[in-house]
Amino acid sequence: MSDIDRRQMLMAAGLVVAASSSQSVSAAAGPQPSPPVDPGPVTKILATYVSNARPDALPPAVRREGRRSLLNWVGVAIGGSHHPTVDIAVSALQPFAGHAQASLFGRGEQLDVMNAAFVNAVSSHIFDFDDTHLKTIIHPAGPVASAVLAFAEYRSAAGHPISGMDALNALVIGIEVECRIGNAVYPDHYDVGWHITGTAGTFGAAAAIANLMRLSVQQTTYALGLAASQPVGLRESFGSMNKSFNPGRAAANGLFAAILAEKGFTSSDAMIEAKRGWAHVVSTKQDFGQITEGLGTRYEAALNTYKPFACGIVLHPIIDAAIQLRNENGLKADQIDHIDMQVNPLVLELTGKTEPKDGLESKFSVYHATAVAIIQGAGGERQFSDAAATDAAVIALRSRVRPHVDASVKPEQVDLSVTMKDGRILRKHIEHAVGSLERPMSDSDLERKFLVLSDTILAADQARRVIDLCNGVEHLEDVSIITKSARIKL
Amino acid sequence: MSDIDRRQMLMAAGLVVAASSSQSVSAAAGPQPSPPVDPGPVTKILATYVSNARPDALPPAVRREGRRSLLNWVGVAIGGSHHPTVDIAVSALQPFAGHAQASLFGRGEQLDVMNAAFVNAVSSHIFDFDDTHLKTIIHPAGPVASAVLAFAEYRSAAGHPISGMDALNALVIGIEVECRIGNAVYPDHYDVGWHITGTAGTFGAAAAIANLMRLSVQQTTYALGLAASQPVGLRESFGSMNKSFNPGRAAANGLFAAILAEKGFTSSDAMIEAKRGWAHVVSTKQDFGQITEGLGTRYEAALNTYKPFACGIVLHPIIDAAIQLRNENGLKADQIDHIDMQVNPLVLELTGKTEPKDGLESKFSVYHATAVAIIQGAGGERQFSDAAATDAAVIALRSRVRPHVDASVKPEQVDLSVTMKDGRILRKHIEHAVGSLERPMSDSDLERKFLVLSDTILAADQARRVIDLCNGVEHLEDVSIITKSARIKL
Repeated sequence: MSDIDRRQMLMAAGLVVAASSSQSVSAAAGPQPSPPVDPGPVTKILATYVSNARPDALPPAVRREGRRSLLNWVGVAIGGSHHPTVDIAVSALQPFAGHAQASLFGRGEQLDVMNAAFVNAVSSHIFDFDDTHLKTIIHPAGPVASAVLAFAEYRSAAGHPISGMDALNALVIGIEVECRIGNAVYPDHYDVGWHITGTAGTFGAAAAIANLMRLSVQQTTYALGLAASQPVGLRESFGSMNKSFNPGRAAANGLFAAILAEKGFTSSDAMIEAKRGWAHVVSTKQDFGQITEGLGTRYEAALNTYKPFACGIVLHPIIDAAIQLRNENGLKADQIDHIDMQVNPLVLELTGKTEPKDGLESKFSVYHATAVAIIQGAGGERQFSDAAATDAAVIALRSRVRPHVDASVKPEQVDLSVTMKDGRILRKHIEHAVGSLERPMSDSDLERKFLVLSDTILAADQARRVIDLCNGVEHLEDVSIITKSARIKL
Repeated sequence: MSDIDRRQMLMAAGLVVAASSSQSVSAAAGPQPSPPVDPGPVTKILATYVSNARPDALPPAVRREGRRSLLNWVGVAIGGSHHPTVDIAVSALQPFAGHAQASLFGRGEQLDVMNAAFVNAVSSHIFDFDDTHLKTIIHPAGPVASAVLAFAEYRSAAGHPISGMDALNALVIGIEVECRIGNAVYPDHYDVGWHITGTAGTFGAAAAIANLMRLSVQQTTYALGLAASQPVGLRESFGSMNKSFNPGRAAANGLFAAILAEKGFTSSDAMIEAKRGWAHVVSTKQDFGQITEGLGTRYEAALNTYKPFACGIVLHPIIDAAIQLRNENGLKADQIDHIDMQVNPLVLELTGKTEPKDGLESKFSVYHATAVAIIQGAGGERQFSDAAATDAAVIALRSRVRPHVDASVKPEQVDLSVTMKDGRILRKHIEHAVGSLERPMSDSDLERKFLVLSDTILAADQARRVIDLCNGVEHLEDVSIITKSARIKL
């Protein structure tokens, strides 16, 4: 639901449009579509890039965003690790899993590489709190980071550790590949019902592992072809555990593809662009230039964003404003008479629940989100729990929240004013919420998010150590130290 | 290529048409499509059937076809088991595979259930010599039988063996589910580029394992939902190892779905029929009645067919005629002046290669197929090998094969006449080739096919024993004896 919410919001904000290109072929293109242009050897071009991409070619800003993607991903993977979804997956897979090759974040079990990658990616998506490539609504790190880190642990045990720099490079390359492939087919592909994180994510995982394995261009082409054969996920499953399943299975499928390709298991050389290839089978739009143009100079991976709040982004400006007013003024709920806000119409369309009964429903209530942000000063998973939704103080304040729809307010904006019982009126205008591309979460915001997500799971010093390892990933001789440091005793 | 060939041939023969239904919604339905009819709870109806289907409900004829499907499948799985495709898959997966839970047919290795199911299904599809549900061109047994038998071996080791009757029932139910789902979306789904054996096959494997696990209706619904999330395979990969990958990964994916569903991993209840569910995402046609109507009374699984010859079915009437003439007349190549035949135009369109250079090309040469059938009296994998394609006697005879196109000859027919050097003319008319629904392979044909496929892999007495076990599957207390009997010492 939060993906749909995000999509609608971004479309309303004009942030998401169908990319236009001479190579775009749309079913809705009108009565006289121009003849399809030969897209060139798209799969080969991409494979050539993936095969040759080395860490020293990454611009510093891209590297930095890779580090931030890693830290954010490890935090959400730990945060979700004791959810029933993960407990079920682990208990189901343990009898069939292989050697203890890779660890589960925040847990004590070890599984074979593919099953561990599956579980860790599932875990990271459970709270819908992971990263977002806003142009495609892909949550990019999940399928890729889980594959990279599980594979790195296996390689470490085999005496061939993967350096932090190589792992970071593979993470960036994987994210780059999945976001570019996503750009080529978004929005048609998403509109028809595919969960794009699972479909594009499979390519991302395959590309990252192919890069780590130093596969040749031909082997990498096969890996991408086998990835194209395994898209995962339908939006119809949103609201069930199946949603988190999708990045998980994308990670495992991408690994599976690369592992076979390494040994010479063949595929077509044109699985992405061929007439009956992936892009035509899963989408009515194909903009292949999004995949092939500017490789190594223009980085989609640099456009990753991180959610500060564990709900749809339509609520983010409001929570941001509420927390700022609270902190600047030391606000207490019992000082407040009522709260007014001018909001985009989408806010009430998507989050209009006045009396949410539980944590899940509270994510769809602007009343709850505002009240809990004022009272608790945060908008994390805990603020959208069953306990928070039924908290008497939150319920008392949420009834005094008054959203006013105003079509001139953009979805990323809000005007919020708190009328105090003593007659004072405190105001806050938000132009772009924290977590947006324009006002990204700071490095210390990301660390705080990590600490809140991990705090019932890791000890404080352990959490701090994992944060430091992620921040210093480029200096690690063996990146698997991150995963090994983020597990707990059974 | 042989699938496409078959499709074109069946369409030309009028055997394949888009099923019409009030519930069919086609993008090409014309200017005023009727409003979509509520398809009802398709996934739940199917799950209810799968959950409750027990062996005693299977009509004898359906059971018999299930046995034949099993025997044919085991034969092709053994036949492909030493192909480079399988060697590569095994060497790639062994480092990551789990406990030795299930055996590989015709080989000595054991892998975990999911990886073993993958490899055995790959093996069974390599020669394009497996079974065919002619209405959809699904090769039904591969994804299902490989999952059932790998799971059964695991259960046997755990002290909970699966009887031959239960395994046969699960095989039939799995085939039934995949063919019905295929019927609902064929041909649009296939035309756009999906390899339908891999996409529908995932459902078949999930359904079969759900049935064996005695999952509840709700658990089975989740298993089908998780299966819907994992379609496998694009036709663009035909001609590469990736084609055999598809039924393999379908088997593994279906197992993965059922294993998670058993523990309560949730999905949507309407993953097949929902507006953004599987059928709408992967096809412009949805005929849901094909899935829900006549469950338990009308069996698609009874319509399975088996290929007698290792090439596209467009050549089958011709090979059939040639072998019959040879056997009836003790024909020798050097007695023959030339061979004429009246054939459907598709024969030259699809198999017009006059001078095939190798085994693969020889599958697309009516000249080769006719000559080798006369000389060797067969049309198996060996008759389409590199050795056969370059055999001097075959080359000499193929230059005297003269196909004459005649649009009045149906694709399943041929008029073949051999003009002898002594002036005699020997004629044979084929109305339906052996292996068709109208003239199915006999049980002894299937046994002969099995023996040829297995003869360089299993000893004769071992092959005989496996055949007998398959034929007597209904009486086995532990069906895993079949797999255990079909492996070889490393």
